[in-house]
Amino acid sequence: MNESTFTVTGMTCGHCVASVTEEVTMIAGVTDVAVDLPTGAVKVTSAAPVAEADVRAAVEEAGYALAG
Amino acid sequence: MNESTFTVTGMTCGHCVASVTEEVTMIAGVTDVAVDLPTGAVKVTSAAPVAEADVRAAVEEAGYALAG
Repeated sequence: MNESTFTVTGMTCGHCVASVTEEVTMIAGVTDVAVDLPTGAVKVTSAAPVAEADVRAAVEEAGYALAG
Repeated sequence: MNESTFTVTGMTCGHCVASVTEEVTMIAGVTDVAVDLPTGAVKVTSAAPVAEADVRAAVEEAGYALAG
């Protein structure tokens, strides 16, 4: 089991959290996604390590951006 | 045709606007709902005048509040 944490910018409410969670959960191999709204931290649990590019694409699909 | 404008607090993003619009649109007789996110102004167009209590209930159902 792998855990990686990313920081997402632009989320302002629970709907935003739900959108990001939904998109990141759809990445192959991801088993859990935990978002902390105040900090923008998105913890991704997956069977194999996730590619940052895949997370970035999912976050952008939801309408937000990865920090950095 | 009647137009009434209410102010809703707590909306932070387009998802919030969509939630409020959806609930207020469900009030009987309402034909159009226009939300301005920066100001929180919600303009309700309806066949007959809408009761503020109905708008308040719809806004609260969406998870927000009427100002004042």
